[in-house]
Amino acid sequence: MRKKKLNVAMIGSGFIGKVHSNAFRQVGHFFDVPYELNLKVLCARDREKLTTAAMQWGWEETVTDWRAVVARQDVDVIDIAVPNSLHAPIAIAACEAGKIVWCEKPLAATLEDAERMALAARNTPNLVWFNYRRIPAVAFAKQLLSEGRCGEIFHYRALYLNQSGNNPKKTNTWRYRRGEAGMGAAGDLLSHVMDLAIYLNGPIQELSAMMHTFAPGRDVDDATLLLAQFANGSVGTFEATRYGVGCPNRNDFEINGSKGMLRFRLDEMNQLEYFDATHDPAMQGPQSLTVTGPNHPYWENFWKPGHILGYEHPFIATVGDFLQSLTRNEPFHANFDDALAVQRVLDATARSASSRAWAQLSQ
Amino acid sequence: MRKKKLNVAMIGSGFIGKVHSNAFRQVGHFFDVPYELNLKVLCARDREKLTTAAMQWGWEETVTDWRAVVARQDVDVIDIAVPNSLHAPIAIAACEAGKIVWCEKPLAATLEDAERMALAARNTPNLVWFNYRRIPAVAFAKQLLSEGRCGEIFHYRALYLNQSGNNPKKTNTWRYRRGEAGMGAAGDLLSHVMDLAIYLNGPIQELSAMMHTFAPGRDVDDATLLLAQFANGSVGTFEATRYGVGCPNRNDFEINGSKGMLRFRLDEMNQLEYFDATHDPAMQGPQSLTVTGPNHPYWENFWKPGHILGYEHPFIATVGDFLQSLTRNEPFHANFDDALAVQRVLDATARSASSRAWAQLSQ
Amino acid sequence: MRKKKLNVAMIGSGFIGKVHSNAFRQVGHFFDVPYELNLKVLCARDREKLTTAAMQWGWEETVTDWRAVVARQDVDVIDIAVPNSLHAPIAIAACEAGKIVWCEKPLAATLEDAERMALAARNTPNLVWFNYRRIPAVAFAKQLLSEGRCGEIFHYRALYLNQSGNNPKKTNTWRYRRGEAGMGAAGDLLSHVMDLAIYLNGPIQELSAMMHTFAPGRDVDDATLLLAQFANGSVGTFEATRYGVGCPNRNDFEINGSKGMLRFRLDEMNQLEYFDATHDPAMQGPQSLTVTGPNHPYWENFWKPGHILGYEHPFIATVGDFLQSLTRNEPFHANFDDALAVQRVLDATARSASSRAWAQLSQ
Amino acid sequence: MRKKKLNVAMIGSGFIGKVHSNAFRQVGHFFDVPYELNLKVLCARDREKLTTAAMQWGWEETVTDWRAVVARQDVDVIDIAVPNSLHAPIAIAACEAGKIVWCEKPLAATLEDAERMALAARNTPNLVWFNYRRIPAVAFAKQLLSEGRCGEIFHYRALYLNQSGNNPKKTNTWRYRRGEAGMGAAGDLLSHVMDLAIYLNGPIQELSAMMHTFAPGRDVDDATLLLAQFANGSVGTFEATRYGVGCPNRNDFEINGSKGMLRFRLDEMNQLEYFDATHDPAMQGPQSLTVTGPNHPYWENFWKPGHILGYEHPFIATVGDFLQSLTRNEPFHANFDDALAVQRVLDATARSASSRAWAQLSQ
Repeated sequence: MRKKKLNVAMIGSGFIGKVHSNAFRQVGHFFDVPYELNLKVLCARDREKLTTAAMQWGWEETVTDWRAVVARQDVDVIDIAVPNSLHAPIAIAACEAGKIVWCEKPLAATLEDAERMALAARNTPNLVWFNYRRIPAVAFAKQLLSEGRCGEIFHYRALYLNQSGNNPKKTNTWRYRRGEAGMGAAGDLLSHVMDLAIYLNGPIQELSAMMHTFAPGRDVDDATLLLAQFANGSVGTFEATRYGVGCPNRNDFEINGSKGMLRFRLDEMNQLEYFDATHDPAMQGPQSLTVTGPNHPYWENFWKPGHILGYEHPFIATVGDFLQSLTRNEPFHANFDDALAVQRVLDATARSASSRAWAQLSQ
Repeated sequence: MRKKKLNVAMIGSGFIGKVHSNAFRQVGHFFDVPYELNLKVLCARDREKLTTAAMQWGWEETVTDWRAVVARQDVDVIDIAVPNSLHAPIAIAACEAGKIVWCEKPLAATLEDAERMALAARNTPNLVWFNYRRIPAVAFAKQLLSEGRCGEIFHYRALYLNQSGNNPKKTNTWRYRRGEAGMGAAGDLLSHVMDLAIYLNGPIQELSAMMHTFAPGRDVDDATLLLAQFANGSVGTFEATRYGVGCPNRNDFEINGSKGMLRFRLDEMNQLEYFDATHDPAMQGPQSLTVTGPNHPYWENFWKPGHILGYEHPFIATVGDFLQSLTRNEPFHANFDDALAVQRVLDATARSASSRAWAQLSQ
Repeated sequence: MRKKKLNVAMIGSGFIGKVHSNAFRQVGHFFDVPYELNLKVLCARDREKLTTAAMQWGWEETVTDWRAVVARQDVDVIDIAVPNSLHAPIAIAACEAGKIVWCEKPLAATLEDAERMALAARNTPNLVWFNYRRIPAVAFAKQLLSEGRCGEIFHYRALYLNQSGNNPKKTNTWRYRRGEAGMGAAGDLLSHVMDLAIYLNGPIQELSAMMHTFAPGRDVDDATLLLAQFANGSVGTFEATRYGVGCPNRNDFEINGSKGMLRFRLDEMNQLEYFDATHDPAMQGPQSLTVTGPNHPYWENFWKPGHILGYEHPFIATVGDFLQSLTRNEPFHANFDDALAVQRVLDATARSASSRAWAQLSQ
Repeated sequence: MRKKKLNVAMIGSGFIGKVHSNAFRQVGHFFDVPYELNLKVLCARDREKLTTAAMQWGWEETVTDWRAVVARQDVDVIDIAVPNSLHAPIAIAACEAGKIVWCEKPLAATLEDAERMALAARNTPNLVWFNYRRIPAVAFAKQLLSEGRCGEIFHYRALYLNQSGNNPKKTNTWRYRRGEAGMGAAGDLLSHVMDLAIYLNGPIQELSAMMHTFAPGRDVDDATLLLAQFANGSVGTFEATRYGVGCPNRNDFEINGSKGMLRFRLDEMNQLEYFDATHDPAMQGPQSLTVTGPNHPYWENFWKPGHILGYEHPFIATVGDFLQSLTRNEPFHANFDDALAVQRVLDATARSASSRAWAQLSQ
């Protein structure tokens, strides 16, 4: 079968751009899709890094002006991997030019931008890189919840901790400036956690939040903490921080329901902990499932059962699933609308923190 | 050396009374103290349980009226292990009778009662059974923090989860009735967590809380969640619930500071996890310390290094330390004043939850 | 109900004597037995330690000559907690005097002694302190195996590692001298492991062993390693060492069978890991059972589910079960015959190591 | 810089061929080497699988006769990923044709073949796919040992357990037939374990082994167990089995030395456990190092610290290191000589098991 070529242009050449490039190179090896991604144009401001990255990953061309890229007829997909405040202008221009648009998270630096982006993307296939949804263990948690294995949900608790804020070498980047990032830990880390929370446990109705900045003079939150009421009747606790010393990249969630518990830790991303409260009491205890097959999400795409996946595989699965959705003309998730829902939670979080009151989320 | 005999009267014969009896029987075997506890009177309402418990543990006499016990001249110590709403009348009467008073946590069913109790106890040696302080791993955490091993503290997070509320067999007790318990998960579980938080991380200045009842018709909280600002500049997240399905008795805390992390889990109560962020970066990683010696708190009192302790040992250490404090005429902690500080947090929690606003704690 | 008093005399006042004293003091608090243990005589050579220990645990009398103790009419039980080479003379004298005899493990310093002891004990109730059998998690493993939960057994692997041999402070004791100990790591550590192996997996038919001494001039084994063929068709690997640096007291076993796996680690002695290979493949994974109830061995004797036990509880359960066996006139295990079976394995181990050939065990 | 193209021909299209193809596609993205691998010819017997695999990974040509491949002038590298008994004829022919030769482990089905292969490969760059050496955590263990962090080594223990033998669906392959595989668990699993043992702890002098077949009629070992004496004075226990029910792919090693312990588990392949016995005793405990940087092996090749690697990355690193060795004209390890050393251990294992006696390894 002959594959249809999709020319991709990626804007941005930082760390996450490397992860995207890898996903583009690898998707055809692991997913049987009728499209072939062609790494057509790499666009970034720093010419030296741009050249190096293009050579490393085999991008055909390099340019420094994203507007020129969006205008090209020979580009099918615009992939956005730049600071948050640039997401909106690029994405909207790309949508208007009729491109398929892929965008890094959080969707935007402000709720207003996010709303404009979602509106602009109405008629074009779109994707937001909430990669953690496609960790097999997370996708399996979704499946178990859908099967009712946890019963009525009582508690959802999640946190995302890293220690970047406590490290002077790491803090002189756009991620620590409100103008470019919009938010600090909330945009960077809580956005991931909230996408998973909504994906797994449904919408949030109201929340009470606290945003805290430890470093003098910094204008974004270093840590964001919140309590939430979910629409399904469960309650949630959330924490995102860049001062989680001891935790380089810790992203955990736990769910307690009337019939069982689920627990995921990114530090052991191939595992899902499951507690079946319907068992004979003497045989109840948390079970550690290695979600590499058989019969687990993506188990036939990658290696064999017991052969673990790493950080990059969920990105590959994201593109793989997107291309399959495109083939079947089905909606893909997480898309701009899903990411807008997350942005509404981030916005409510900021409102609650500044007003020191509970904030509502209109559904 | 001849030991001075202290006649103890215990009011209450439930599960925790068994744990106290054990501590009274065991303290002389593990702590070299100049007092000998004499199990003089056991007092409880249910005559049959009373007789059984007295025979099992060797209490000399049994009575059913606590007032008669408090009035006796031949009783030195009144130990209170009854429902929360009875703590105040018994403790105050015992203080007025000049007894040494030991009381279960939380100190009282209401803040008013707790304040009256603390006032009454001013001139008598007193103790509150916040047993978890004397888990060697917890006491060692306190020592490491005092040595500055974690530097400036950024985050404190703690939870106490059990699953009793989801179990119809367990919910028909005084713990689920406001009149006797005062509060639900907050009094039962959060009180423990808060005592440790204040002990380890200092006072809380303000908090935003949510109290939730899952079971229809129940008049106490099944789950209490809160965000807190500590006086030392750190922020905290707390959760206590009786709907933590999958977690029979989970009590965890974590502390992130500029120089390191500490992590404790009651499910592995002989371990303390320590992360030293001042190490060579390539050699940084969480270290699991088995806090059974050498040179750990209480290591010479019980068994040998590597030989673990169980649930009851912190209770034995509580009495052991109390008797040593008595010998040296030094204040003992946790005492009624410490427990009053916890009660103030519980009260602020209830105020915040009902007003849906941040509540202040006057120091 | 009036309890019958049993007068106990304990020979030995070292660490394990403290553990026995505790068990004698505690058994009546946790086991409903028609006997009351009376701590009548404590016997040891070092008069100062003897007096201290007797005061600490409330032994009525102290003596320094074990022969005088065995001869007393007012002693019902002789408990032996002295160096291995003294087990035989004391135990045989005690048996001949018609006493109930309890003895520390290994049964003896030589197979010949062990055989004479087993013969002498034919007509008197007897016990060997293989305490690990009565860890609830181990007893539960036995129950699961008996129920066929692991199917046909393929593999048994076990090790007991400590680091005492690498520590100059610890090596100047009788445990490091052949004359008193008989063997080194084999007698001290492998004996425990072998008792569990035979208890859980049945008799061993043949074995190939290696005994190694790291310290120059020491005349006992520092490490003993062996391969074994069990009578049930499974194969085993065993290791016992005093040079297991990093492991203060590590005693693990694992069992793989056609239907599942069991795994126990003394470092987490309240847990049993169970893998059910008959589950739906997607739901297979090791499950961590906290063996504190409900419906687990000893769960009604000690605390509540989720409230863990420590090092001393299996000793208490050993005496508790012994006294219940005595009441019912049933055989108790582990007894001298069970310990003789272990001694035969230790002897075969030494024969194999010195002959550098497989050694058979006649059944 | 212009890269030199190396034309690769791979013989074999099974699971491991997929892993090799991936490594060839990925090496240039993560390693800065002056060679570019060109996927020239894929050779396998099953034409359908061959075509599918070639399309999936972009091999230019497909053929079914390996002799024709070896004879081609336009092929620089022969990569052998076929059943063990075919390694020798292909590798020897490839060496004689002057090709660079890469070969799967174990090196051969017999020691004689392995010796002939090592001889034939004397003058050509060669590699054996002992992929586990290049797990960053394993390479870091090697570094720590080289730095003397564990002091004098006492114990090495390792096992490799899977459950394939207990699964009727998996046993009808060449791996279960002596003619094609040479050995069972020994060749398949123990070979990996032994390569790591020699790499990390040096040569073995003598061993006592047991080989066991559980399935009636099978002519290879299902389980191989052995005790070993290393040249450095340490002793080892080893186990490899296909009946390790509960363990899909468990490959663990532990090393105890006078100054510390190291522990690795493939199930958590990004972690290395390190115990520093030179610390203050109160601060000693196993430390879990996440070996993803900073300053860990390969940390700059792949993702960021805290972003884990999966099964395939060590294969990529194997090719990357090989190409860098080729550039520098330095020997690469593991090569045919290294694999021959492993084969000698496997042969001694088989000799010991059949003679039921210790077998010597001439160095």
